[in-house]
Parts: sequence; C-alpha cells; structure tokens
Amino acid sequence: MSPKDPDFAERVARSFAKQGLMDTIGAKLLRVAPGEVDIALPVAPKVSQQHGFVHAGAVSTIADSACGYAALTLIPPNAGVLTAEFKINLMAPAAGDRLVAEGRVVKSGRLLTVSQAEVYAEAAGSRKLVAMLTATLVALEGREGTAD
Amino acid sequence: MSPKDPDFAERVARSFAKQGLMDTIGAKLLRVAPGEVDIALPVAPKVSQQHGFVHAGAVSTIADSACGYAALTLIPPNAGVLTAEFKINLMAPAAGDRLVAEGRVVKSGRLLTVSQAEVYAEAAGSRKLVAMLTATLVALEGREGTAD
Amino acid sequence: MSPKDPDFAERVARSFAKQGLMDTIGAKLLRVAPGEVDIALPVAPKVSQQHGFVHAGAVSTIADSACGYAALTLIPPNAGVLTAEFKINLMAPAAGDRLVAEGRVVKSGRLLTVSQAEVYAEAAGSRKLVAMLTATLVALEGREGTAD
Amino acid sequence: MSPKDPDFAERVARSFAKQGLMDTIGAKLLRVAPGEVDIALPVAPKVSQQHGFVHAGAVSTIADSACGYAALTLIPPNAGVLTAEFKINLMAPAAGDRLVAEGRVVKSGRLLTVSQAEVYAEAAGSRKLVAMLTATLVALEGREGTAD
Repeated sequence: MSPKDPDFAERVARSFAKQGLMDTIGAKLLRVAPGEVDIALPVAPKVSQQHGFVHAGAVSTIADSACGYAALTLIPPNAGVLTAEFKINLMAPAAGDRLVAEGRVVKSGRLLTVSQAEVYAEAAGSRKLVAMLTATLVALEGREGTAD
Repeated sequence: MSPKDPDFAERVARSFAKQGLMDTIGAKLLRVAPGEVDIALPVAPKVSQQHGFVHAGAVSTIADSACGYAALTLIPPNAGVLTAEFKINLMAPAAGDRLVAEGRVVKSGRLLTVSQAEVYAEAAGSRKLVAMLTATLVALEGREGTAD
Repeated sequence: MSPKDPDFAERVARSFAKQGLMDTIGAKLLRVAPGEVDIALPVAPKVSQQHGFVHAGAVSTIADSACGYAALTLIPPNAGVLTAEFKINLMAPAAGDRLVAEGRVVKSGRLLTVSQAEVYAEAAGSRKLVAMLTATLVALEGREGTAD
Repeated sequence: MSPKDPDFAERVARSFAKQGLMDTIGAKLLRVAPGEVDIALPVAPKVSQQHGFVHAGAVSTIADSACGYAALTLIPPNAGVLTAEFKINLMAPAAGDRLVAEGRVVKSGRLLTVSQAEVYAEAAGSRKLVAMLTATLVALEGREGTAD
C-alpha cells in the first residue's frame, strides 16, 4: 500500500493531537506506517466500566481511531476521512497494564476504505487479543477543514 | 417488558456510578425504565475528534452503556451483563449542545439480549438523529462481582 | 421521505425481477412505498439450515434486498445503490409458514443511505420478530448498467 | 486450536449435507481443518443480483456457513452452534468463476465463538478479496437435534 501524501505521518500526528478525546482518556500514538497505525491506552480507573475492566467505549475509541488513521495514511493530501460505521467484538476482559490497538487497511478504495483493528491487552510478559473492530471510512474531498 | 428485579433502577444507578469512563467524559444517567435507559453527554472539547465534532468513540460509549443498562433492567438480581459486540452507524456530525443516547431492549433472552440505541444531537430548538447502535449482551449468572 | 423518481415502484420491481437469487430461493416483492420495501419468503426445505429452520443466509438475503430497495425508492433516476456492508442479529429460529422482511430507510444521504430491516416469521395466527439487519448503501451515479 | 471431537470433519460434512440452502445455491464444502472451513460457490445466474454479480445474500450465506462450521470443528460432540449475529463488508463486485469463503476461528470460548471469513473471487489466474464477514456463534449444549 503506497501513500499518496509523502507527509502522511506528520498529517496523522497533527490530526491525532487535535482529538480532544485521545488526550482525555490518555491514549498515545505509537506507530504510523502506510496503511498501519497503532495506538496505546494505559489501563486506568478513568477509562473503566463497572467491573474495573476498560470500558467497551474506550476500547472502541482507540480501535476506531487506529482504523481511521490507518485509512488516512493512504488518502490524497486534499481529502479527509470520516467513520461511516464500525462493528466491534469484545472477546475478553480488557485488563492488564495497557491496551494497544493495531489498525490496518484491508481495502482502500477511492470513496470507501475498510480497516480492521485488533486490540491487545498487555501485561508483564503477556499479550492477549481482547477485541477486533472493523470500520468503514468515507473519503471526503475538498471540504473545508476536513483534510485530516 | 417486565423487570425480574424490583430494585432495577437503583441497580443501574449504582453500576453507572462505578463506570469511571462516564465520569471522565461527563456523561449523565437521564432516565431508567424497564427495558429503556437514556444517557446524556454534553458536547465539549474533551470528547472531540479532529474536526471539533464529538468523537465516534464517545458517541459509542454512551450508546453502548445505554444498551447495556437497558438490558440490565430486565436481568435477575444475581446476574450481570457484558457487551459481546456492537455495531454503530454514524449518520451525521455529532454537534450541538448535548447528545442523548436512548437505549431500548429489542429482544430479551435468557442468555443473550439485543438492544438498540439511537443517539440524538440536541441544540436550541432542534433534535437530530446522528447515530444508531445495535448491541448483543451476554447475561452472566453467579459470577463474583458481575451482578451489574 | 419523498422519492426523486416518480417511477420508483416500477424501477424496484424491474430490478427485483433481475435478481436471480430471489427467484432461486422463492422470494416475492410484497410492497413498495417511499423509503419502504417488504419482501416475503416461504419457509421451505430449499432454504433450510441443518436443523430445518431457514438459513441465516436466506434471512439475510431478503433483509438485505429489502434494505437496498427501500434505499432505491429515494434515489434519483440516473443512480443506483450497492450494499457496502450490513450487520444482522438473528434473535429466534426462523420457522413458520413464511418470513417477511420489512426494509425501512433510516437516513438518506447524497452518498450513503442507512436502512434497517426487521424480519418476521409468520404462522397461522402468529407473527414473531426473528431478525434485524442494518445496512449501509452507497449511491452510484452515472455508471453504465447500475441505475437499479 | 484442538478439536474436542475426533470426528469433527465428518460431523461438519454431515451437517453441511443437511443444509438445503447450500444445495440450492450450488455451494460445496472444500476443506475442513481444526478451526478452519472453506466453502466454494460457482458464479451463476441463479445466485445473481440485478447487475449480474453474485448477490450479497449468497456471499453472506457461504461466509456465514464457513464461520459456523469453523466454530463447530472446536465444539464438544454433544453441543452445536448457532449464529447469533454477523457483519459483512462487501468490498468489490463478486464476479469471476467461483467464490471461496475461508472461515477461521478468531476466539473460541465455552459459550461464544468469534469467527471471521474472507471471501475471494477466483477467475483464470486471479484471486481477489471481495468480502469479509465477522460472526458471533453461540454454543448450544444438550439440546435435542442441535449437535451440529
């Protein structure tokens, strides 16, 4: 997969920095490559659900952003992407030290991109698949303020 | 739909208060009825995505919780529910003054519950459907610490 | 919801008649209105899964077509629609005399339409919700052979 | 992934032979291994949609069955599986000589299994990813007539 914007990594980083929710929950941009973006989230009470695990909403947040930014790495400079829909399977309690969402582009089209993210829970010496998210992203061309 | 636990509303309120993420993003429990739970989220920079709209992850968070708590209102006292999976369609930018997620049980089974939430963006004098989420919840019986 | 093509009902009927799979499984077009299409499927061994119920694939087939044609009723004459993705919850065994999928447009956009179908199993004197499908449809303008 | 039933391959084949819909659309069981099942479907007018491509419902049918049978290979002899829900992304027109759905178990739990299927369109010398389906399967234990 080849990026249409040589500046794709900086573009993802600039956009990520503008997502207030990422800062609010403590998520960090780990890695950006063509068609691939990883995001990390420390496990903490501020992102918990009622049993102390990470809330499905926080798991979805980093997985959705990882999918969207993976798509953005392959989009022309004058366009942006928006999530049209996603589906997530939560397969195990999200516990441990931190979560890592690995977003990968499955199919990059002119109009629609399909990305998938796997979310792993990492603890000392272990790494477990806890969720999988599939997203459909729409490319928006030439709309003011959406080129990210 | 008839609750199996007369204490269902207090039970939802107690569980909601334990979800750290709800407090972090500023979500409030608006209304609890048998098979129905509404949750509100003020639109604010701390839950934004890169264009200033509410992040799909925050929209998902309140819609998922509304679906899960709608399911919980119909579950016996000794059981709890977990989200197995959900799918969300984001149909319009989530802007305005606040979002309201209205979760409703579609089908309540012994093992699985299907709930659906509509998310509305409210502003002065207007109310617009911005997202729709469908969730599959699993009932967990008799597991320590999961009766909520 | 107002159709942009006065010929919308005939257009749906013509397109339906071209879907070989509808004829193969025995599905019939029941009703067409702006933003609404119903499709019926007789319960029969030729559409069964291993326990004798209607196969999830056949349930999905009529629900997907009902969603797509509901979308098509609102599309301009020179455009067509394709299913980008759908999600279906199967909530009860699909048995009885016939299934009816009721497709309704939830949100009609220039580019994307979101439709939802409920599938009911009908038998003598009863009608039961057995499945619910949510689809994202893409409008295709001016492509040869896709105006349906 | 290790099967709990040494007879898993025969069990899948017996169950497949009972699915009337597989015979109706012309689908064949290609391959069965622990956690993995492939199903083929010849491209033909009887499974078409209005533009002559394979109908999304037929694509879903083989992908859903591939996911369900992949799950069944890991299930104890006295239990069966049912699809609770699935989501499919249709990424390219399903054309060519035949489709092959490759179902793989992603997570096998006591109660729930998550499987994913990729669907490829094969023609002379080419093979293209056209769809991806994620399914949640429920294990049913000790119910009469459901051990397949």
